[in-house]
Amino acid sequence: MKAYQELSRVELLSLKEQMEKEFEDARGKGLKLDMSRGKPSVAQLDMGMDIFDVLNSGSDMTSMDGVDVRNYGVLDGLKEAKQMMADIMGVKAEQVIVYGNASLNVMFDAVSSAMTHGVMGHTPWCKLDKVKFLCPAPGYDRHFSITQHFGIEMITVPMTPQGPDMDMVERLVTGDESIKGIWCVPKYSNPQGYTYSDETVRRFANLKPAAADFRIFWDNAYSVHHLYDEEERQDRVLEILSECEKAGNPDMVYEFASTSKISFSGAGVAAIATSKGNLECIKRVLAIQTIGHDKINQLRHARYFKDFEGIKAHMRKHAALMRPKFQTVLNTLQGELAGLGIGEWTNPNGGYFISFEAMEGCAKAIVAKCREAGVTLTGAGATYPYGEDPKDSNIRIAPTYPAPEELAAAAEIFVLCVKLVSVEKLLEGKAA
Amino acid sequence: MKAYQELSRVELLSLKEQMEKEFEDARGKGLKLDMSRGKPSVAQLDMGMDIFDVLNSGSDMTSMDGVDVRNYGVLDGLKEAKQMMADIMGVKAEQVIVYGNASLNVMFDAVSSAMTHGVMGHTPWCKLDKVKFLCPAPGYDRHFSITQHFGIEMITVPMTPQGPDMDMVERLVTGDESIKGIWCVPKYSNPQGYTYSDETVRRFANLKPAAADFRIFWDNAYSVHHLYDEEERQDRVLEILSECEKAGNPDMVYEFASTSKISFSGAGVAAIATSKGNLECIKRVLAIQTIGHDKINQLRHARYFKDFEGIKAHMRKHAALMRPKFQTVLNTLQGELAGLGIGEWTNPNGGYFISFEAMEGCAKAIVAKCREAGVTLTGAGATYPYGEDPKDSNIRIAPTYPAPEELAAAAEIFVLCVKLVSVEKLLEGKAA
Repeated sequence: MKAYQELSRVELLSLKEQMEKEFEDARGKGLKLDMSRGKPSVAQLDMGMDIFDVLNSGSDMTSMDGVDVRNYGVLDGLKEAKQMMADIMGVKAEQVIVYGNASLNVMFDAVSSAMTHGVMGHTPWCKLDKVKFLCPAPGYDRHFSITQHFGIEMITVPMTPQGPDMDMVERLVTGDESIKGIWCVPKYSNPQGYTYSDETVRRFANLKPAAADFRIFWDNAYSVHHLYDEEERQDRVLEILSECEKAGNPDMVYEFASTSKISFSGAGVAAIATSKGNLECIKRVLAIQTIGHDKINQLRHARYFKDFEGIKAHMRKHAALMRPKFQTVLNTLQGELAGLGIGEWTNPNGGYFISFEAMEGCAKAIVAKCREAGVTLTGAGATYPYGEDPKDSNIRIAPTYPAPEELAAAAEIFVLCVKLVSVEKLLEGKAA
Repeated sequence: MKAYQELSRVELLSLKEQMEKEFEDARGKGLKLDMSRGKPSVAQLDMGMDIFDVLNSGSDMTSMDGVDVRNYGVLDGLKEAKQMMADIMGVKAEQVIVYGNASLNVMFDAVSSAMTHGVMGHTPWCKLDKVKFLCPAPGYDRHFSITQHFGIEMITVPMTPQGPDMDMVERLVTGDESIKGIWCVPKYSNPQGYTYSDETVRRFANLKPAAADFRIFWDNAYSVHHLYDEEERQDRVLEILSECEKAGNPDMVYEFASTSKISFSGAGVAAIATSKGNLECIKRVLAIQTIGHDKINQLRHARYFKDFEGIKAHMRKHAALMRPKFQTVLNTLQGELAGLGIGEWTNPNGGYFISFEAMEGCAKAIVAKCREAGVTLTGAGATYPYGEDPKDSNIRIAPTYPAPEELAAAAEIFVLCVKLVSVEKLLEGKAA
C-alpha cells in the first residue's frame, strides 16, 4: 500500500472521485449509528438484570454492620459497599467514602468545595486571583467541563503511552503555586486506553508541588474494565495512595471510581478514596450537604457481586461482548488505513475507547463527514481543554454501544471519511 | 391544677424532692430512647417493602417516554417520575427536575451554585461583601447548617401559627439587597407543624425584594404527610409557584420535596420545582455536575405508587401508625402539664414533630436531664440559627421512631424532666 502523501495530484483526484461515489452510496442508506459516547450496549445491560432479584419484599434489609439501610444514617457508606469500592480501586475500605450514582458528581463536588471552602484548611480557591489545573490531553471532556465551569485555567499536558509528560508536570507543579490540580485517568485512559507506567505513578507520588493544596484527581474509571481475559493482556497500575504515603505526600490524591460501567450507567454506586485528612475534611462537608447516600442501592450491589471475584467474573462477561466490537473497528482500521499515512490509532487492553489520530487539520472535517452519512462521533476537539484540539487531529471512537453489525457499517463509513477528508487535505497542498 | 408560678417556695421544694426520687427511679431503668430525629419507625419502613418486587430480572426497563433507564441519559428525570414529584408538590410536571435521594442535597447545591455562579446571571454570592438569609425560627436545623456553612448571615424571623412574621419579612426583604433568601417549610413546619395561611403565601408571592436574585427556599417536605384521614384535619397550602406567577414574580421560588418520608429515608427520590428561567439555569449546571440521577430508582418509585392516589393511600397507612404515637405524647403532655404554666406545645395535623415551648431558660436543662435518664431529644437550640435559641425555651419532640410502648416511657420521662427543671428554675427566683 502506498502512502497517500506519495500519490500524485492526478492519483489523488481519481481516488477522490471514486470515494465520493462510495460516500454518496453510504449516505443514501440513511443510517443512524452512534459511536459518540462510552455507553454500554443493551446486551451488556441485560447481563446485569438479575441484580434486581437480590432485594425483594422479603429481604433482610440489615447491612453487615447492623444498619437498617431503609432509614436515615451512615454518611460514608455501608461496610460491605466500602469494601466493594475499595476492591475495585485496590485500596483499603477505611480509605473510602461511598457516594451516590455518579463519580462525576463526586469530582464536581470536590472542586466546588475547594472553591468555596478550600482543601484541608487552605484558602478557598475562589479567594485566589488565579487557579490552574493541568489537563493531560487527549482526555475526558467532562473533566475539562468541570474546571472550565469554575473558571479554572486549564493547561494542556501531552499524553504519552506511559501517561502524561511527567517532565512537564513536575516542572509546572513545582514552579507555580496557582496550579491546584491535575486530571488523570490512570488506567485505560479516556480516550487512548493508555495505562500509566509504574515510573509515572511514582513520579506523581513524589511530586513537590508549590501549592500545599495541590490535588491529583485520579479518576480510576476503568480499573476492572479489561477487554482480554489473559493476565498478560490486562494492564496494571500502581496503587497511588500508598505510593503517595511512602513519598510523604499522603494527602495529595483524590481517587474516584464507580460501578457505572460495571452494573448500570447512572444507577450504580460511586466512591472516593483518599487520605484520613482528606476524608475528615470531606465528611465535615457531607454532614451538611446530605443525609447520606442511597444505602439500599449500596446493599443491592454488595450482595449481588458478593466479592471482588464476583466483580471480575461479571466484567469477563462484559469483555466477551465488547472484545469483538473493538476488534471489528480495529480490523477495519487496519485493513483500510494501514500504510496510508493518514491516521494512527490505539489498540487498548481495556476501557471504552479507541483514539484515532488523523492528519493534522482533518479531525473536524472527518467528524462532520461521518455525521452527514449518519454516523455520530464525539465532537472533534472534545478531548482537549476548551474543546480545542490544537492540531485538529484527535477523534474518540466509542465502539461499545452499537450492535456488532451496526458497528461494522459505522467503521466502514469512518475509514471512508478519513480517506476522503485526507485526500482533500492533501490536494489543498498540491496546486493544479 | 395550680400553676407552678403560684406555688410557695415550700411547696416547690416538696415537689422537687418528690420528683427527684421519681427521676432517680427513671434513671435506674437504664432506658435508651430516641426522640431526636424525624425518622420513620421500623414498622413504617416495613410497609413499603413491596416496592422491591416492582423490578426484577424480567422487568421491562423502559420508561413511559421510551428511555432505557439502565443507561446514560436524561438529566431532568423520567416523565413518570416528574409527574409523581409534581403531584406531591401540587405543581406541573414541566416545572420539575427529579434528583437523587436527598432534597437536602438539592438545597445545598442550589446555595452552592448561587455562591459560585450566581442565580440566573446575577453576581455570584461569593463575590458580594455580605449575603443574608431570613430564617423563620423555630425551624429546621439542617437548613441553618447550610447557610452557616457558606458564611451566610442568618436573621431570625419569628414563627406564628400562620407562618413567618410577614411584616418583618416584607420590611427586611424590601429594604436590604444583601438578603438573598429565606428558608420555609410551608406545611406542617419543622418543628411546630404549622401550615402557612393563604394570606402568608400570597404575601410571599407579592414580595418586592430589593435583590433581584432573592429566592424563597420552599421546602415542601411534608406535603402529603397528614396525620388524620378526615379532610377537615388535613392542612392545605396555596401553590406558591402559580401565586408567584400571578404576582409577576415567576422566578422567586425554589420548591423542594422528596419521597424520603414516603418510601425510604435516604433511598427515595428528590426534586425541585421552579420557573422555566430557573430550570434552564439549573440544567446548565447539572449538565456539568452529573451524568444524571438514578433513573432506575425513579422508575421503581413511579411504578410502585402508580399515581397520586397510590401515594395518598400509602400515606394513610403511615398515618395510622404515627397517629397513636403523636397522641401518646400529646396525652401525656396534656395529662401531666396542662395548667401548670411551665410549657406549651403544638398539636399538628401532620408532619413529624411536636414543638414544646418550655419556660424561658429551661430548654437546655430539660434536654440534658432527659439524656441523663436515657431519653435523647434534639439538642436544645438546634431549631434556631447558629444553634442559639435566644429564650432557651424551644424543644423539638420527634415521636415517630420509637415503638409505642417506648414512646410512652419516653414521654413520661420528658414531662418529669420539664417539671423538675421548671421547679428548679422557679426556686432560683425565690430566695430562701
